[in-house]
Amino acid sequence: MAYKDEQLNEEKVFKDPVHRYVHVKDRVIWDLIATPEFQRLRRIKQLGTTNYTFHGAEHSRFNHSLGVYEIVRRIIHNFEDRPHWNEDERLLSLCAALLHDLGHGPFSHSFENVFKLDHEDFTQRIILGETKVNKVLERVSTGFAQKVADVIAKTYEDKLVVSLISSQIDADRMDYLQRDAYFTGVSYGHFDMERILRVMRPIDDQVVIKSTGMHAVEDYIMSRYQMYWQVYFHPVTRSAEVILSRILHRAKHLYEADDYIFKLEPTHFLSFFTGNVTLEEYLKLDETIVHYYFQMWQEEADGILRDLCERFMNRRLFKYIEFNPNMQMQEWKELYQLFQHAGIDPEYYLVVDSSSDLPYDFYRPGEEEERLPIHLQMPNDELKELSRNSDIVDAISGKKRTDHKLYFPKDLLDGLSDERMKRRIKEILNERGEIENDD
Amino acid sequence: MAYKDEQLNEEKVFKDPVHRYVHVKDRVIWDLIATPEFQRLRRIKQLGTTNYTFHGAEHSRFNHSLGVYEIVRRIIHNFEDRPHWNEDERLLSLCAALLHDLGHGPFSHSFENVFKLDHEDFTQRIILGETKVNKVLERVSTGFAQKVADVIAKTYEDKLVVSLISSQIDADRMDYLQRDAYFTGVSYGHFDMERILRVMRPIDDQVVIKSTGMHAVEDYIMSRYQMYWQVYFHPVTRSAEVILSRILHRAKHLYEADDYIFKLEPTHFLSFFTGNVTLEEYLKLDETIVHYYFQMWQEEADGILRDLCERFMNRRLFKYIEFNPNMQMQEWKELYQLFQHAGIDPEYYLVVDSSSDLPYDFYRPGEEEERLPIHLQMPNDELKELSRNSDIVDAISGKKRTDHKLYFPKDLLDGLSDERMKRRIKEILNERGEIENDD
Amino acid sequence: MAYKDEQLNEEKVFKDPVHRYVHVKDRVIWDLIATPEFQRLRRIKQLGTTNYTFHGAEHSRFNHSLGVYEIVRRIIHNFEDRPHWNEDERLLSLCAALLHDLGHGPFSHSFENVFKLDHEDFTQRIILGETKVNKVLERVSTGFAQKVADVIAKTYEDKLVVSLISSQIDADRMDYLQRDAYFTGVSYGHFDMERILRVMRPIDDQVVIKSTGMHAVEDYIMSRYQMYWQVYFHPVTRSAEVILSRILHRAKHLYEADDYIFKLEPTHFLSFFTGNVTLEEYLKLDETIVHYYFQMWQEEADGILRDLCERFMNRRLFKYIEFNPNMQMQEWKELYQLFQHAGIDPEYYLVVDSSSDLPYDFYRPGEEEERLPIHLQMPNDELKELSRNSDIVDAISGKKRTDHKLYFPKDLLDGLSDERMKRRIKEILNERGEIENDD
Amino acid sequence: MAYKDEQLNEEKVFKDPVHRYVHVKDRVIWDLIATPEFQRLRRIKQLGTTNYTFHGAEHSRFNHSLGVYEIVRRIIHNFEDRPHWNEDERLLSLCAALLHDLGHGPFSHSFENVFKLDHEDFTQRIILGETKVNKVLERVSTGFAQKVADVIAKTYEDKLVVSLISSQIDADRMDYLQRDAYFTGVSYGHFDMERILRVMRPIDDQVVIKSTGMHAVEDYIMSRYQMYWQVYFHPVTRSAEVILSRILHRAKHLYEADDYIFKLEPTHFLSFFTGNVTLEEYLKLDETIVHYYFQMWQEEADGILRDLCERFMNRRLFKYIEFNPNMQMQEWKELYQLFQHAGIDPEYYLVVDSSSDLPYDFYRPGEEEERLPIHLQMPNDELKELSRNSDIVDAISGKKRTDHKLYFPKDLLDGLSDERMKRRIKEILNERGEIENDD
Repeated sequence: MAYKDEQLNEEKVFKDPVHRYVHVKDRVIWDLIATPEFQRLRRIKQLGTTNYTFHGAEHSRFNHSLGVYEIVRRIIHNFEDRPHWNEDERLLSLCAALLHDLGHGPFSHSFENVFKLDHEDFTQRIILGETKVNKVLERVSTGFAQKVADVIAKTYEDKLVVSLISSQIDADRMDYLQRDAYFTGVSYGHFDMERILRVMRPIDDQVVIKSTGMHAVEDYIMSRYQMYWQVYFHPVTRSAEVILSRILHRAKHLYEADDYIFKLEPTHFLSFFTGNVTLEEYLKLDETIVHYYFQMWQEEADGILRDLCERFMNRRLFKYIEFNPNMQMQEWKELYQLFQHAGIDPEYYLVVDSSSDLPYDFYRPGEEEERLPIHLQMPNDELKELSRNSDIVDAISGKKRTDHKLYFPKDLLDGLSDERMKRRIKEILNERGEIENDD
Repeated sequence: MAYKDEQLNEEKVFKDPVHRYVHVKDRVIWDLIATPEFQRLRRIKQLGTTNYTFHGAEHSRFNHSLGVYEIVRRIIHNFEDRPHWNEDERLLSLCAALLHDLGHGPFSHSFENVFKLDHEDFTQRIILGETKVNKVLERVSTGFAQKVADVIAKTYEDKLVVSLISSQIDADRMDYLQRDAYFTGVSYGHFDMERILRVMRPIDDQVVIKSTGMHAVEDYIMSRYQMYWQVYFHPVTRSAEVILSRILHRAKHLYEADDYIFKLEPTHFLSFFTGNVTLEEYLKLDETIVHYYFQMWQEEADGILRDLCERFMNRRLFKYIEFNPNMQMQEWKELYQLFQHAGIDPEYYLVVDSSSDLPYDFYRPGEEEERLPIHLQMPNDELKELSRNSDIVDAISGKKRTDHKLYFPKDLLDGLSDERMKRRIKEILNERGEIENDD
Repeated sequence: MAYKDEQLNEEKVFKDPVHRYVHVKDRVIWDLIATPEFQRLRRIKQLGTTNYTFHGAEHSRFNHSLGVYEIVRRIIHNFEDRPHWNEDERLLSLCAALLHDLGHGPFSHSFENVFKLDHEDFTQRIILGETKVNKVLERVSTGFAQKVADVIAKTYEDKLVVSLISSQIDADRMDYLQRDAYFTGVSYGHFDMERILRVMRPIDDQVVIKSTGMHAVEDYIMSRYQMYWQVYFHPVTRSAEVILSRILHRAKHLYEADDYIFKLEPTHFLSFFTGNVTLEEYLKLDETIVHYYFQMWQEEADGILRDLCERFMNRRLFKYIEFNPNMQMQEWKELYQLFQHAGIDPEYYLVVDSSSDLPYDFYRPGEEEERLPIHLQMPNDELKELSRNSDIVDAISGKKRTDHKLYFPKDLLDGLSDERMKRRIKEILNERGEIENDD
Repeated sequence: MAYKDEQLNEEKVFKDPVHRYVHVKDRVIWDLIATPEFQRLRRIKQLGTTNYTFHGAEHSRFNHSLGVYEIVRRIIHNFEDRPHWNEDERLLSLCAALLHDLGHGPFSHSFENVFKLDHEDFTQRIILGETKVNKVLERVSTGFAQKVADVIAKTYEDKLVVSLISSQIDADRMDYLQRDAYFTGVSYGHFDMERILRVMRPIDDQVVIKSTGMHAVEDYIMSRYQMYWQVYFHPVTRSAEVILSRILHRAKHLYEADDYIFKLEPTHFLSFFTGNVTLEEYLKLDETIVHYYFQMWQEEADGILRDLCERFMNRRLFKYIEFNPNMQMQEWKELYQLFQHAGIDPEYYLVVDSSSDLPYDFYRPGEEEERLPIHLQMPNDELKELSRNSDIVDAISGKKRTDHKLYFPKDLLDGLSDERMKRRIKEILNERGEIENDD
């Protein structure tokens, strides 16, 4: 028996709080899960700093990756006897689902921003490089690793396979919405996935939805909308991310400065600072390593690095106000200078952060990120784009919502002794909006 | 207004997946949560290595501590108008509930065993020492920190207050059973807590249960029983703990050896090795630090330390068989020597681990750990010990169940080239029981 | 102690699957529940014929009434210490909540349509008439029954009290959405009621929502939208209602005809036929009585009554197609005549049924049904109408959606022997839309 | 294609709150569900009078029957590729599962007791008689109806098929425990059915449980235990049943008396009174018919019938005390006579009701009801009886628990004007136990 078709003696299951059980029968899947590269995902939280807002959100990307695999397994199980579906793509789809997030590092969002990285590149490099994961994949057949990488990069020729993990209603989104809702405990994020899976139909190069299931899809899109604004873009979470980014900036700045000597050298970060990250170094950097440095750096000589690390580790976050991106330059300059005069370096302590989301979009040729729409299969087999049939989806379709916030350390401002300066700063900040509490 | 009674302007809530919401009105509680000592609990998993078995179990002690606080808050809310309850003890009870696990370190079970520590000592030291927590508590009134420490140490005079967090049906157990069930996803661990809270009655120095609620308590005790054997004592979890303990032993051994030079010195562990742990050092050691060392030690010169760390980080665990504690010494010696001859040091690679639990016990004066029984309040106000009224509880009452397992690295045995030696080892191991898989 | 403030010796609870427990402390509430008029609600299903579509939906109005009471109890509990709330209205609010649906009869929707009744009139008559309910209420204080009736009729002067059970976000809606979702098993209908209750604020004559809770309200409005279209207006449910209405019409018709002699006289229906329903007769007619007649009428001499009753009792429902209300009169006439020629009386077997819903509306003075909008309380205490702040709600606000279906007995058409006639009928029907199955 | 293998064009699903979805692919199953005999189960509540205690328990036997079918469908789906399982028995198993409760009438327990009926006989008669159900079954193949009847009667030769719906861990029990827990809202009744289904193994003539699933089975058995005592045997439910039985007795008594003239003749009950129930009459008697009579009989001339019906319809139940079955005959006689003297006929108003349950039993040859034990399949394939491996099950195994209660109308006693008589009655009753409230 070829490794490709090799089955475990007995099906293995993982108890999963979201999907009840994750089922594994293929030896390849079992072996992939056991690789160090995949086990590493246990040490990277799915939602980065969100647990500072929702304390239950401590689940890892390991968790989520198993979930996406399980959903694709169920979709394929339903597809088995349908036309358009090529059963030969089964194992490929499962591997791609399991590994789609393999390249994520700790606090991806901040690291990618600060160091201009892309976790998707690393996913490719891990799958194609000298890794255990690559070895397991190549045992299936020569070139299989490349195929898996292609599916994840969306360049694989069979777009149907690609769409299982990368479309506006894919296994990735369906897992994280439910999983993040479960672990945070919020009441959004629930939809009838079992029904969606049952009305999915493979047609040529896409998965369409039997029109009788439209309402379950509406519910899914609304869940997505609510999760983005209630959980993913929560301003307290972003406050922690702002601090994290500033720490990375500061550490790089100090490293590049000639005269600063670290008590703890940023060994694990060096290649990130120089922009030349090797795969080996990348794989070593997980959340526990980052925490180690941040904890140690609380004793650094540099006041800013020390303060920011202490804030991050002990959750002493920045406060925020609504920020008007059309603020007068004059006023911004004044605020900036006031911070400088107060000795609160605005580069690190006065930060604008913006979030925006497009809950669903139909196809707009030529636009920067062309999104494939969700199609309904009508009783007469005609395909119809979702927003043309659903009032609710139509209402939010293509509408990008953006939110800007200005972050700053309220505690430092409160501590200023120059009362006039303090008053003026608060005046400008309050003109921008009420200073909000962090609940 | 004294700090004691100081209330927040508006009640704050934490979204909690288990209790829906955790409510905070008292300034003291809010301030305690914000201390670095309490925030540190975010970096210590509630269930140590259990996430190697149940991947959802990644929740922290921070999580659980808020939960215990919330349950005590609800109990006290129900007690408000009842006789026997002294409303003056309210804030004390809440603080003790919140802080009862404050002294836990990373992987407490293993660390305490290997280094002969007791996390309860550290809880006392954190509350009474030079800490932020202590400062907040002392602001309530002088000596308040000592009172909180006494409640947690069970030495406080008002035993009713003590029993809220330390009895056979306390807020601690009620939270962790439900929380651990929620995050692992197992179906055990559910019981009708709302009903139990409603039938709790403060009587003199204990909380008794109105007899109409007996069945909810039975259900709770069965949940506890199942959680112990299905989750807490799961042999795969224990396999990871066995490896962890051996790593600690090996590191200490190498440190004590004259001739070994660490690539990464065990700086954070030194005081643990020498048995003289300062509070400051203790507070620095969280799970992320432990993971940092274990990751780095995968590159140590010492083969055993390297291998064990690699196993732990990548979840390459030991296999196990049922172990008969009455095994003939002769046979054990042979097995031990065979491992030695095979070059697999039995001190690190042949480990017996035992677990035992007493699901419920009535009072047995003079026994080592005297447990206070659960009392039912009958319609005529008489008190009756639970197992005298419940067939189910009676059936398991006082019955200690113990389980012994022998752990070893099956992969190393499989790799032995001396076929006779390999066969003989497997022979002895198989006599002890089937080698089981890890699901 | 006045009856008004009389408390039960011990709080009573009802185990409720939706709200976990319903709590009763007031003697008046306990006594109201025990009246025959309230117990009668056990024999009237909350969702009429919906259980023919969702088999779990067999719950009664008794169920729902307790739920609304419980929600109002919790709202008031939160209001206790707030300004604007008059604690004297507590018992009045609770009684009105409990009794708000008291006048519902079996299959209200159909009965009210056919016999031009209004269940709200009967609620008034039961509360104010010679009933046990009235006696219990009047024991509170003379005129108390009238007050309760006024609250339910929305004429009570304190509009804040009225709004608890009659507004766009009231206890009535919050209970039925969750309860109907629970019993049908659909995944819609869930929202974070606990959060909504916590952000409700009594302000003058309305309940407003603290703006931080806006998203929970959005979720509630979307739930409502989905429940209407997925559950309440489900075409299979309406098919059963269509048949039910026709039975009532036919029975009235036969009664009014001079020459028809019933095997079972429609005694319980007589006053409905003549349009002069006494309270006593109304209270006697519950679902079991209706079922009794329908079962017996399966043996009537009249073929139409017999067939319709047999269809209703055995769930042999009509099929349906989308109906275009702008259908050419010519075509409709032809269809009508074809049915006549085929001997399938179109008065009973060719029925158009329309449903429409307005998910949320802001205030439009002068329109037929002026709806009070939901107001958000902004951080600066300003009130803002919901749809002005919420994109989602704005999207569906004021948009009425209507759905027309044409019902007919496909089995009878299939059985026609005149092939040309059959073909032509199906031709016309198919032009209107695909004949759909009933799942 | 034979009818036997005929599949629906597209799988149909029923939304089910307990199993999420019930799936139907076989034309036979679809047709069986549509028969009047099966639809009739919608008009019979699964738990009879339990909704007087747990108001949510209004679900019908229709509900439960679909659930049992669905569980068997899932079990068989898991068995597909296993040895010992004969795929030819698939459709037979599904039909038997669906129809196993077909012969239940309204309030079965009381009707069977009073009129010495057995619903299992009627199940046989409906399946084998001149019914729509029989016609559908015989279309599969001649004699198929008999086979289905044999499976339900446990006389079918393939005991493996029988055990799916009749054993100590069958689809029937697994459905009703979960379903009744869901609708009542109690927290008992939950167990990990998905896991149990996965560890079920067909071996010769029984279904055994892979030993790794033992704890899920323990949990199931404890659920069963709790449901029996907390829900099924709840004394308030039994109070309603006691009244119901007395109504049936009284109606029969009056019918048999020469001189009593009913205002509403008990037409539907006649054959029950005379002990010669035809199938047609049996099928006509559902809960709505019973309610119709009871409502009408509230206006009968006979005081006892009138009072009992009024009590039943309006839930004015009897109170109860613990009853000692070893009560002195002398004392019982006195009590009986006191009731007689008080004009409260003890035949109808002083009723002892007993319940008993055996939660699990191993095989005891020769005893009245030999129960087949649950067997575990150990890793070495040996079978081991459950209680030999499980401490908890062993503890309750074979232990019958019995509960006796004495029911009486406390309101009538309270209304007695002869104070001495009243006092003496209460004296005797109180000696037997505290008069309890009905919560």
